[in-house]
Amino acid sequence: MTRPNRLKVPSALFTLALLMVLGCSGAVPNESPEWALAIHGGAGGMARDMPAEQRDAYLAGLESALEDGAAALAEGASALDVVERVVVILEENPLFNAGRGSVFTLEGGHELDAAIMDGRTRACGAVAQVTTVRNPVALARRVMEDSPHVFLAGPGAEIFAGRQGLELVDNSFFSTPERRQALERALERGADQAMQTVGAVARDRNGNLAAATSTGGRTAKFRGRIGDVPVIGAGTFADNASCAVSATGRGEQFIRHTVAARIAALVEHRGWDVRRAAEHVIHTVLEPGDGGVIVVGADGRVAMVFSTAAMFRGVADSTGRRHAAIWAEP
Amino acid sequence: MTRPNRLKVPSALFTLALLMVLGCSGAVPNESPEWALAIHGGAGGMARDMPAEQRDAYLAGLESALEDGAAALAEGASALDVVERVVVILEENPLFNAGRGSVFTLEGGHELDAAIMDGRTRACGAVAQVTTVRNPVALARRVMEDSPHVFLAGPGAEIFAGRQGLELVDNSFFSTPERRQALERALERGADQAMQTVGAVARDRNGNLAAATSTGGRTAKFRGRIGDVPVIGAGTFADNASCAVSATGRGEQFIRHTVAARIAALVEHRGWDVRRAAEHVIHTVLEPGDGGVIVVGADGRVAMVFSTAAMFRGVADSTGRRHAAIWAEP
Repeated sequence: MTRPNRLKVPSALFTLALLMVLGCSGAVPNESPEWALAIHGGAGGMARDMPAEQRDAYLAGLESALEDGAAALAEGASALDVVERVVVILEENPLFNAGRGSVFTLEGGHELDAAIMDGRTRACGAVAQVTTVRNPVALARRVMEDSPHVFLAGPGAEIFAGRQGLELVDNSFFSTPERRQALERALERGADQAMQTVGAVARDRNGNLAAATSTGGRTAKFRGRIGDVPVIGAGTFADNASCAVSATGRGEQFIRHTVAARIAALVEHRGWDVRRAAEHVIHTVLEPGDGGVIVVGADGRVAMVFSTAAMFRGVADSTGRRHAAIWAEP
Repeated sequence: MTRPNRLKVPSALFTLALLMVLGCSGAVPNESPEWALAIHGGAGGMARDMPAEQRDAYLAGLESALEDGAAALAEGASALDVVERVVVILEENPLFNAGRGSVFTLEGGHELDAAIMDGRTRACGAVAQVTTVRNPVALARRVMEDSPHVFLAGPGAEIFAGRQGLELVDNSFFSTPERRQALERALERGADQAMQTVGAVARDRNGNLAAATSTGGRTAKFRGRIGDVPVIGAGTFADNASCAVSATGRGEQFIRHTVAARIAALVEHRGWDVRRAAEHVIHTVLEPGDGGVIVVGADGRVAMVFSTAAMFRGVADSTGRRHAAIWAEP
C-alpha cells in the first residue's frame, strides 16, 4: 500500500471509509423516488385531544396542498414552481400561520416573512415585515428573479411588490378571530406559544431541489423582529449538492445554529443521509421543544423531524406514498 | 459544544485519516498565538495609484483600530468585547462604509446593518435598516443580550435602541461629501461599485472566538434591501467549534452561498485549516471579484482572503505580528 499523499486516497481505504459511513448512517436502503414533496404547517404543543373536527380540518388542509403539489410534480413541474404553489395554498388557508390567518404582532397588526430557494443554482429570495402582500412567498420569488437583491424588508418590499403587480390587500385581510383571541391570551399570560410556519421542500423529476417557507411570525412579537424564515441557511435552504430544508419553531434558535445550512453541511461533508442529519441537529444541537424541519435529499428521500409534541406535516412521492400527520408516530 | 461525534472510527484508521487531512491541507506548522485579531474595512477595486495621503489615512485608520483591539486582548478582554469596540472605532471613522461615512441609498439617506456573534455560545444579534443609531454594532450587541430576539429591523430596531439608551443621531450624521459624490456618480453611470463593510474577528486568551460586521450597504441601494452583514451564516458567524468569520463584498452572493457558515462547515467537518476553507469558498464557490473574508480559527490562526484587487485589512496577534495592508501581496 502506498503512503497517502495529497488527495490520492488508496482505494481500499476509501472503500473502507465509505462502508463505515454507510454503516453508521442508519439508512435503510429503499426505493429512491423519482420525485418527492414534503410540507409542514408548523410545530408546537398541539393537544392530542383536539376536537376531531378541528383535527380533520388541519389534515384536509395538508392533504389538499399535498395533492396539488404531487400532481404538478408527476406532470414534470419544477421543484421551484411546486414549493411556491404549495406554500401559496397554505398561505391562503386561514388555519395556518402564514398569509391569511397570520398571528398578530404586539401592536395588533401583521408582519409576514417568506423565502424561497432554488437548489439548482442556490438562487434565493427573501422578504420580511410585509404587511400588504397577499402571498409573501410569491413576492420572495419575484425578489429572487426580478430584482438585483436577495432580501427585501419593510416598505421597500411593499413598493417592489406593487411594481411587480402582485396582489395587495389591506393588512386586516390576514386577520382571523382565532388569531385575535390568541393575541389576547398571549397578552394576558405574557407567554408566547405560537411558533408556526408553513413550508415545502421538493425534488422534481429532473433531480432539482427547492425549498420555500412563509410565516406570520410569533404572536405578540416585538415590532421589527425578523425570525429564521427569511434568513437563508436558518429556516430555508436548498442546494442540489446536499438537500432542501424548511424549518418551523423558535426562530431565534434556528438563526443562532444556522439550522438549515448545518443540516446541509452534514449531508454534504459527512455524507449523512437527510434523516440522520436532521435528527442530529434537531435533537442534539437545538433544545428540546425548539421545533422541527422537513428535508428532502438529492436522492428524493424525505425526513420530517421535530422535538415538539406535534408538527403539521405531510409527504407524497412518486412511489405512491401519501401521508399527512400531526402528532409524533411510533 | 455540538461537534458531531457519533462516528466510531477505529483509532488506527482515524490517525491515518488525520495524517491524510493534514497532508492535504497545505498548512505550514507555526506558532499558535494566544490571542489574535483580524479586521477589514471593505473589499473592492481600489486603485494602486491612490494618492499617498489617502492611502496613509486608510492604513492609519486600520492600524489605530488594530492597536486598540490588540491592547485589549493582551490585557485579557473577551473576543466579544474586542470585536465590538474595534468595529465601533471603524464605524466612527468616516473613511469606511459603516456608521459615519456610510454610503447613500438611492433615496439619499442611510440605512445601516450590523451583526455580532459569540463563538462560545453561538449567541448573536443583528440589526438592519437602522437610520438613527450612532453605532449599529452596539445595538446588535444589545439585541443579542437584552432582547428575546436575534434580528431586529427598521423602526422596531430604533425603538429598541431608544429604550436601551443608545446614542441616537440625525440620519445626516452619517453623511460625508465623499459619499454624496459617490451617489451622484452611481446615479449618472447607473453602476454601483461600492460594496464596503467593516468587520473584526478575534480569538481571546481563553480561546473564545467572536465576529462582528457593520455596513452602510451599497451605494444607491434599493430601499429595504438587506445584505449579508446581518444574515448570520452569510456575512457574520462565530463558533468555537470551527472559526469566526466576517465578510465584505457582493452581499447577495454571500447570502446565496451562506459564505460564513460554509467556511465554518469546511473547518468543522473536513478539518481544513481556515486558510484552505476561506480560499476554497472565495475562489471556487464565489465568482471572481465578489469580495473577501477575514477568518480566525480556534487555534488563533488568521486567514484574510479576497478575490477583488484590494481589501482594507489588518492582523495583530500575541506573537507580536502587526500588519495592515490594502492591495494583494505576493
